[in-house]
Amino acid sequence: MNKQASLPKQVKIVEVGPRDGLQNEKENVPADVKIELVNRLASAGFQNIEAASFVSPKWVPQMATSRDVMDAIVRKPGVIYSALTPNMQGFEAALAARADEVVIFGSASEAFSQKNINCSIAESIARFEGVAKAAKDNGLRLRGSISCAFGCPYQGEVPLDAVADVVGRMRDLGCDEIDIADTIGVATPRQTQAVMERAAAAFRLDGLSGHFHDTYGQALANIYASMEVGIAIFHSSVSGLGGCPYAKGATGNVATEDVLYMMQGLGVATGIDLDIVVDAGQFISQFLGRKGASRAGNAIAAKRAN
Amino acid sequence: MNKQASLPKQVKIVEVGPRDGLQNEKENVPADVKIELVNRLASAGFQNIEAASFVSPKWVPQMATSRDVMDAIVRKPGVIYSALTPNMQGFEAALAARADEVVIFGSASEAFSQKNINCSIAESIARFEGVAKAAKDNGLRLRGSISCAFGCPYQGEVPLDAVADVVGRMRDLGCDEIDIADTIGVATPRQTQAVMERAAAAFRLDGLSGHFHDTYGQALANIYASMEVGIAIFHSSVSGLGGCPYAKGATGNVATEDVLYMMQGLGVATGIDLDIVVDAGQFISQFLGRKGASRAGNAIAAKRAN
Repeated sequence: MNKQASLPKQVKIVEVGPRDGLQNEKENVPADVKIELVNRLASAGFQNIEAASFVSPKWVPQMATSRDVMDAIVRKPGVIYSALTPNMQGFEAALAARADEVVIFGSASEAFSQKNINCSIAESIARFEGVAKAAKDNGLRLRGSISCAFGCPYQGEVPLDAVADVVGRMRDLGCDEIDIADTIGVATPRQTQAVMERAAAAFRLDGLSGHFHDTYGQALANIYASMEVGIAIFHSSVSGLGGCPYAKGATGNVATEDVLYMMQGLGVATGIDLDIVVDAGQFISQFLGRKGASRAGNAIAAKRAN
Repeated sequence: MNKQASLPKQVKIVEVGPRDGLQNEKENVPADVKIELVNRLASAGFQNIEAASFVSPKWVPQMATSRDVMDAIVRKPGVIYSALTPNMQGFEAALAARADEVVIFGSASEAFSQKNINCSIAESIARFEGVAKAAKDNGLRLRGSISCAFGCPYQGEVPLDAVADVVGRMRDLGCDEIDIADTIGVATPRQTQAVMERAAAAFRLDGLSGHFHDTYGQALANIYASMEVGIAIFHSSVSGLGGCPYAKGATGNVATEDVLYMMQGLGVATGIDLDIVVDAGQFISQFLGRKGASRAGNAIAAKRAN
């Protein structure tokens, strides 16, 4: 028998359903539903909730209500409410909306960067210098999110060095936390470990987070594998929001309920009440008029109904 | 960084969709569809396919066509076609149908055994003595399947000693392979490792297999964790057959496509062509009139369609 790697004793789960999740849902979700969702999630015990995105509503209509949401949610002391900020205009909006953390972003894939924002990775990150400085000046937390760190829809493989390079750039901008994201959900466990280890050579291990999508069903295995190399922050989305599981090319975030169920079984502390999360998942799934995409959530709900 | 446990270089995937999977589907599947499914799976490269169950058709109407299926499939040399045999009558039927392997079964949960077959675990396994001897006498492979090894719907926790005890009884009956099954899909990775390590104290490590259901979304993480302790045989079901993902209390087997995708990524050899499995999954899902439950299968099919 092999000796097992030890796991972190506790992890932080960043709930990204209200932003990364809902942003990718086709149906328009009104502000009051989002507010209720965020409040339910805060009451479940999340320390960090991605609640808003101050991008142009022309690009992302679903996020047009971000200010309304941030204004109306019941702020729970100690909870970090995050907002995506693509530029200084977005930063000013996030500041006005009293975001606790702003999120800047870049890709580890040169092809993805060129195709999506028509500039190099290096240029795209340099553009965030103003936002990063303003965040620091205003005492806001700064998070950097790196997409396509495990694979790219355009170029396929993404070199480990490219990931490390972007991590270094995010670090140099002063990020407090850096997300290593599998945007298209293609990673497998040993690859995950290799990428995380390479990222950890460029940034504090306890400041790195894993953001996995369940496109190929690998997300939970990748989270477990990440923990084996010491990663202790993970993103997840209540009820697997973000890409309908019944639609072509579904690319939902890993479901929070599945992650919490695993953490419970592993004896890893999260500080989050799974039952309240299951309720929140039922709430938003009912609004969207479909069964949730969390297997644990559905199993727990079915058990309750019996 | 922790030192990682090494993984097996190759694994055997036992495709259980045509039996364990379809048996739990409500819709009646005619023999010709099953035959086509088994033939497609054999052509994909599986070494072992669970194709039939010689139980009373009164109990399991879906399996009433088992003889027709076994008679009509194209036997691919080297492939082991397995059949469940609850008793000597079932064994005789399996022998007549030219099964290569017969499967006997018991539970690791005393409560489950009493509730389902009204006798103790020990008694239930002793009843298989005749089948076990007949299998040996006729040169058939003998597999023992242990249900509820990670949890029970009636008694909850299942002691490690109870698993080890049943493994020992199956071993003493002469089993060539013993399945450690998470019938209700409740296991998490470290528990999985603890159960597998305990089972391996009672039987050859290379004769143990992991049989996981994805009820709580944990199956793939559990398979990965099992590999870390040296398990190299896994059961899976094409397209996640066995319990509709859209129904209450869904309890499908882990999807073969998701397992194969992970193995490919891990560089672990299976000898199986994932593309042919995806086709087989589309074939049976179309027959059942629903989207398959394999995330990798759906993602690959969507990618092809683009």
